[in-house]
Amino acid sequence: MNGLMMQWPLLISSLLVHAERHHGEQEIVSRRVEGDIHRTTFRQLAARARRMANALARLGVKSGDRVATLAWNGYRHLEVYYAASGSGAVLHTLNPRLHPDQLSYIANHAEDKVLFFDLTFLPLVEAVAARLPAVKHFVAMTDRAHMPAASKVPNLLCYEELVEAESDAFAWPEFDENQASSLCYTSGTTGNPKGALYSHRSTVLHTFAIALPDALSLASRDVILPVVPMFHVNAWGLPYAACMTGAKIVFPGPGLDGKSLYELFEGEGVTLSAGVPTVWQGLLGYVDANDLRFSTMTRTIIGGSACPPAMMRTFQDRYGVKVLHAWGMTEMSPVGTVSILKGSQKNLSGEEQFQVQCKQGRAVYGVDMKIVTGQGEEVAWDGKASGELMVRGPWVIAEYFKGEGGDPLVKDGEGRGWFPTGDVASIDPDGFMQITDRSKDVIKSGGEWIGSIDLENIAMAHPCVAMAACIAAEHKKWDERPLLVVVKKPGSELTRDELIAFYEGRIAKWWTPDDVVFVEAIPLGATGKMLKNRLREQYGKRLVESS
Amino acid sequence: MNGLMMQWPLLISSLLVHAERHHGEQEIVSRRVEGDIHRTTFRQLAARARRMANALARLGVKSGDRVATLAWNGYRHLEVYYAASGSGAVLHTLNPRLHPDQLSYIANHAEDKVLFFDLTFLPLVEAVAARLPAVKHFVAMTDRAHMPAASKVPNLLCYEELVEAESDAFAWPEFDENQASSLCYTSGTTGNPKGALYSHRSTVLHTFAIALPDALSLASRDVILPVVPMFHVNAWGLPYAACMTGAKIVFPGPGLDGKSLYELFEGEGVTLSAGVPTVWQGLLGYVDANDLRFSTMTRTIIGGSACPPAMMRTFQDRYGVKVLHAWGMTEMSPVGTVSILKGSQKNLSGEEQFQVQCKQGRAVYGVDMKIVTGQGEEVAWDGKASGELMVRGPWVIAEYFKGEGGDPLVKDGEGRGWFPTGDVASIDPDGFMQITDRSKDVIKSGGEWIGSIDLENIAMAHPCVAMAACIAAEHKKWDERPLLVVVKKPGSELTRDELIAFYEGRIAKWWTPDDVVFVEAIPLGATGKMLKNRLREQYGKRLVESS
Repeated sequence: MNGLMMQWPLLISSLLVHAERHHGEQEIVSRRVEGDIHRTTFRQLAARARRMANALARLGVKSGDRVATLAWNGYRHLEVYYAASGSGAVLHTLNPRLHPDQLSYIANHAEDKVLFFDLTFLPLVEAVAARLPAVKHFVAMTDRAHMPAASKVPNLLCYEELVEAESDAFAWPEFDENQASSLCYTSGTTGNPKGALYSHRSTVLHTFAIALPDALSLASRDVILPVVPMFHVNAWGLPYAACMTGAKIVFPGPGLDGKSLYELFEGEGVTLSAGVPTVWQGLLGYVDANDLRFSTMTRTIIGGSACPPAMMRTFQDRYGVKVLHAWGMTEMSPVGTVSILKGSQKNLSGEEQFQVQCKQGRAVYGVDMKIVTGQGEEVAWDGKASGELMVRGPWVIAEYFKGEGGDPLVKDGEGRGWFPTGDVASIDPDGFMQITDRSKDVIKSGGEWIGSIDLENIAMAHPCVAMAACIAAEHKKWDERPLLVVVKKPGSELTRDELIAFYEGRIAKWWTPDDVVFVEAIPLGATGKMLKNRLREQYGKRLVESS
Repeated sequence: MNGLMMQWPLLISSLLVHAERHHGEQEIVSRRVEGDIHRTTFRQLAARARRMANALARLGVKSGDRVATLAWNGYRHLEVYYAASGSGAVLHTLNPRLHPDQLSYIANHAEDKVLFFDLTFLPLVEAVAARLPAVKHFVAMTDRAHMPAASKVPNLLCYEELVEAESDAFAWPEFDENQASSLCYTSGTTGNPKGALYSHRSTVLHTFAIALPDALSLASRDVILPVVPMFHVNAWGLPYAACMTGAKIVFPGPGLDGKSLYELFEGEGVTLSAGVPTVWQGLLGYVDANDLRFSTMTRTIIGGSACPPAMMRTFQDRYGVKVLHAWGMTEMSPVGTVSILKGSQKNLSGEEQFQVQCKQGRAVYGVDMKIVTGQGEEVAWDGKASGELMVRGPWVIAEYFKGEGGDPLVKDGEGRGWFPTGDVASIDPDGFMQITDRSKDVIKSGGEWIGSIDLENIAMAHPCVAMAACIAAEHKKWDERPLLVVVKKPGSELTRDELIAFYEGRIAKWWTPDDVVFVEAIPLGATGKMLKNRLREQYGKRLVESS
């Protein structure tokens, strides 16, 4: 027997309708590619998204067609988010930091029909346009005055002309909430990139979950500045959450240097930001060098990779900005856990609370997690034993776009599918998960596992270290031993022996790295993560003959 | 094209599983019918709910069968909530304040198969048992030691014996999220009571919505004391929200007097409570008489009927407890709006903010609302014009149980159904809705509408008035005129003319009540609302011949 409640599908367009009706005057502020600061409102966003939906229809975009973007965080990008998904098409956010070969592979695999791009990426689009036979229309996200005089891109359209030519009357269609809404490819350090195809349902449920007080706690009084790009897993859901909650949103555009970000934080009264650890280095460096303070920011979400504890202390102790350590994956829409203290932990000492915050956190409602041995047996939640982390829930993928890579799920005893995250983690009795490594990065020394992240965090706590990667180097006797690859802070003096000695008393003796390589830079992937596989190619043989 | 996300139905059992896994040690505290204070945890709740699910199966309860409760707020009631819905049956909460005739009508209409009841209600159950042929089992919610020695209830079972006899191994079944989960009848001041049949989907979505920061803002650090009974629209969703968020929950049982409530508030560190205005009268009276303060409570949710502004001021100005004025209906699961300030209102003066708080509030995401004229045309959101309030959304009913009362929805131009709330309201440009009256209570004077609630609020602001109802009395010349029915505070002196004079300058002259009737008590319905139809029967002819 079914309940007798209204059937009201969870559609992305309903977020926009809610924002327009209830927060019509709320601001959306963008630093534009054109160089200026642009201001609009949710009411105008809704009207322009409807115009763009009319334009998409005129361009021949049908339900289910992929509409690609190659763009910074900005109001036009947000308009395309809602216009594409809202009208039944699939928003496909391309990562402009990818190599042109990878980018064209992805756009072709997705069969993108229209490609919207910021002017910054004109050279990139010119480089790949000829290789994208499926793309029928290229749209430069600017006005007529800023359109390139001559371009190698065929039939280049002007965004503002498309918008201006249409009526703002458009009725968002109603359809099954399981319909595909957006597509995002994983960075794919091995094999071809694979697409996560989100649905309207998964997106709206994820939005509810991340807005909760024990997740990101988003309200209409908040001013959100997503540093995390809208081409990374939908900027962690913030463009949707802003509409659900009526929060003001501030887009940094291409200005991701410390000075540009800081000016927006202060000028717009930002209360909350979000990004990967590497982007915060620049901001904190600028703030430190100029002896500045954050006057409105109360909290920042750090995810994408583990936040070095030293960075967390700087934010909290020096600047009074609370760090919300979060964990997720492209395959999880992305949020899985947030490290926010439970009521029962409020009486812990400051240092004990800090240790809890350093973990990746506890699952938001809607995400089930477990850790398992290589044989698939569940590992106890004792905060010590680790195993491979598996997840399930309504915003976790069941398979990749076009079935790429086969069935990614692992079935449990009851026949339920779990997504193997590729992370190795422990979970404590309070449910706080801590990633000890990527399963491919863990160092297998004499049959025991050494977590590379712990070793990196210790190195990062040394005042002379700017960045550190710990890799598994082959070893004749122990199979693998930890090798540290380090970038020194400019002007710092630090020797191998000094850094090795720094580990004394901070970690079990046999976990101490065997050697240190100082380098100028550590290669980063398109999502800002350290490319350890490249380091392994380069330095993985260095310890083979050592004792 | 569908997204490729996991199909994971939104089931009430998943809330309990989440609470057990992630907040297993969180406390549930209950003042029991037996007189003592009882403590348990979410872990034990989950285990005992599984035992009870086994017991229900043994009693022959099948998927879709109705399982009734007649009980106060307490841990055993919570166990039945999860055991019944989780195992696929329908939880049917009966209101013990109803007349036995109404109660047996409802239980028979619902075809309740099992009836769980608190010992307090043994006489009531004895009075109606013979009239409930569908009920196969009566279960007293107590242990063997407290079981009545002799009872007229046939085959009376003991709750604790049922629980103890079963294993705590039970796998919550997975089924369609649209399956019915629970049933609650409206108090029905006219016609037969009608049942709202909620689904698992509607319940889980409603739980997400009410836990958001701009709704009730529920987190694991909260300690919730629902004064609103679990037999009123699932205690406004708090029993579900506690599991989703891991908040501690404190149940007052039958102890709803000021002293009992205050002791629990202070003893258990309650941060948040919820109830109808009438219950707060007793609490505030006790706190005032004993010159006490609330040391942990930061906010209270007042709904069910409009909160008198004077009460709101007392809570906020005198006790520092923020009032969250909320509005909803049984037909809406129940939450529709919460009056929480928007970011753009933070610069208003204190008095202006207070005036916003006095409104019923803005719609939570998931609830669409509009106001319409008698001809169905939308009325502008200008904060002045009023119309009949209509709502839609995934936790609004589409029809009543068994089709009672026909199709309740009104279709709009696009064919979408809206539920007419029976309230007359205005909506301001910020989206804050204010109920000016029930459509049946509005006073139609010479073709113009006078809102009875405004007139009651003014009377309530007079220091000598304990309670006030304003009704439409028939009038020869004006069709209807406002008549005030007033209960004076004990020991107060107040005349008709003094009270009429009190309206001067507070309201348009022609809105001033024509007369005042002083009474000993105003009749209240089973949900604590004033029964104005009874007052109209008694006093509705009093002004017919006046000038």
